[in-house]
Amino acid sequence: MTTLTEVAKLAGVTAATVSNVLRNRGKVGVATRQRVLEAVDTLGYRPHLTARALAEGSAPTLALMVSSIANPFYPEFALAAERAARQSGRFLIVCNTNEDPAIGRAYLEQIAGTLSEGVLVMNANLDFDDLRKTQARGTAVVLCMWERPDAPPGMPCIAVDFFAAGALAARHLLDLGHKRIGAIIGSQADGVHAARYEGFCATLREAGIAHVPAEARFTRDSIQGGYEAATELLTALPEVTAIFATNDLPALGAMHAAADLGRKVPEDLSVIGITDIQLARESRPALSTVAVPTEAAATMAVRLLRALIDGSAVGALMQVAPAPELVVRASTGSARNRRS
Amino acid sequence: MTTLTEVAKLAGVTAATVSNVLRNRGKVGVATRQRVLEAVDTLGYRPHLTARALAEGSAPTLALMVSSIANPFYPEFALAAERAARQSGRFLIVCNTNEDPAIGRAYLEQIAGTLSEGVLVMNANLDFDDLRKTQARGTAVVLCMWERPDAPPGMPCIAVDFFAAGALAARHLLDLGHKRIGAIIGSQADGVHAARYEGFCATLREAGIAHVPAEARFTRDSIQGGYEAATELLTALPEVTAIFATNDLPALGAMHAAADLGRKVPEDLSVIGITDIQLARESRPALSTVAVPTEAAATMAVRLLRALIDGSAVGALMQVAPAPELVVRASTGSARNRRS
Repeated sequence: MTTLTEVAKLAGVTAATVSNVLRNRGKVGVATRQRVLEAVDTLGYRPHLTARALAEGSAPTLALMVSSIANPFYPEFALAAERAARQSGRFLIVCNTNEDPAIGRAYLEQIAGTLSEGVLVMNANLDFDDLRKTQARGTAVVLCMWERPDAPPGMPCIAVDFFAAGALAARHLLDLGHKRIGAIIGSQADGVHAARYEGFCATLREAGIAHVPAEARFTRDSIQGGYEAATELLTALPEVTAIFATNDLPALGAMHAAADLGRKVPEDLSVIGITDIQLARESRPALSTVAVPTEAAATMAVRLLRALIDGSAVGALMQVAPAPELVVRASTGSARNRRS
Repeated sequence: MTTLTEVAKLAGVTAATVSNVLRNRGKVGVATRQRVLEAVDTLGYRPHLTARALAEGSAPTLALMVSSIANPFYPEFALAAERAARQSGRFLIVCNTNEDPAIGRAYLEQIAGTLSEGVLVMNANLDFDDLRKTQARGTAVVLCMWERPDAPPGMPCIAVDFFAAGALAARHLLDLGHKRIGAIIGSQADGVHAARYEGFCATLREAGIAHVPAEARFTRDSIQGGYEAATELLTALPEVTAIFATNDLPALGAMHAAADLGRKVPEDLSVIGITDIQLARESRPALSTVAVPTEAAATMAVRLLRALIDGSAVGALMQVAPAPELVVRASTGSARNRRS
């Protein structure tokens, strides 16, 4: 492989000058610059990124930690983050923790600060202690979609107002005349979907609609989890006319459950989710949902991480992503249409 | 950050000895080894992977090039490849080319041989010329799911017998008594799905069933692509009793089209795909399909890549993954059941 020194020799300059030209740094005359670039071309020199990163004291990738790349939301987020990273001259390493804090810790210890100069964390079931240790070693960390803008985590993050997302979904169902609404929560009661469920509950309460624990099910954040929870809920409480799910996957599962129970969506049952993954658009009927700002949050997260790395941002910083938005499709309809 | 030299100083040995202990190389006495490991512990030394990689003349990641991470098959494959890579002590960088050969080329030029010591290529719309250039620079390249075991690409690859997959799907539909079978191909006629379609056609031909061009549609490899193609096909040829799709996504789209046209699956129309992505299991009705060996192919690809890097495998090598297998679920049924 051609080295910097060989390029320098051919161009008749020092290695430092070649380096300055390639990095657009220092003062280099036009003719010298031209000579260096011609030598680079002639010899087919490719700057050795790893070596350059070492020389500059930084590594050339960003890492994205996700809990399960098989959940379709994460590839969508990774796609947006990868685009933003590439635009800023960095590659994205996707690290999959399989919901296992020990795997997450291994990734952090192996790559943070060495292979990757910064870490984006997306619901990766990581201990905050591990993240703080990573920060303490001088590696930038950004939480990607913090669920509670009103309660900053004491760590740089992009916050998304998921309470508002839950509230929007509830408001939509109330506007359609629904009064008996089941809730399917894709996490434990104190888990990552808690804020969404609180927004839903608060909106029902304000409207004077009772929502009792029997109308809620806590389950896995998957189509199958939503299917099982909805089957149970609709069997126990057939008078329910709408289901709010805290994520699109369990909402899609709820639609499957309705189909298997002979209830048409939206005539016999309205279903709404949160996120707006691609499958929400592609399901039959298409899923009404509350879209979260995936693309914007990914771009903001990469920018904040780069700012922390560059030293132009410091300390515990929270940035709030654009507000979630209601997307009405075919899975929600008027409660009055219900066939009895 | 603690350096190798500081560890060596504390342990009273040379840096080379510390390095040998950490890499399990060279002859080091038990007591010395113990002293080095204690010093590593005491100082909290973490081997600097990037530096180590440079010293060893290799970089510590593998790259996986995919054409669209938003297609749910790729995350499933990436998950398996990442697991295999991690087991062999490497991290996986996922590079998304967005079906753009220029982006693929940029990735290859930027990371191959520098950041990544080897490249896995999965339907990434890359020019073979670009891959050969990458090989010529000394970087190992493995094609992950080559579609034609009978026509090796002259490059290391894991081949999957997709002709057999198409044949299995056709055989299943013939066994159910179907004679008018539509085909939806998720690529151009000479594209990556050609072998699957050929297997389908050959099997029909052997059974003495005519399959005419009017019964085939070439479309995009997506739910929406399959939906549009099936709508057109079923409208033009309502006598079709079954649809074979070359991939699960267009097969799922065909089921949506059937629903919108008032045809029940499988009573009025059988639908079968190829791959067995997670959505195939989760759709309603669950999709019959021909499962390809995703996990096995990913593991074999990582192993072959590592062997090429280590020098224990050389030249153009093709390994054939386990045979595709029919998975019968609820979307296919007897042609005799058709309501008329």
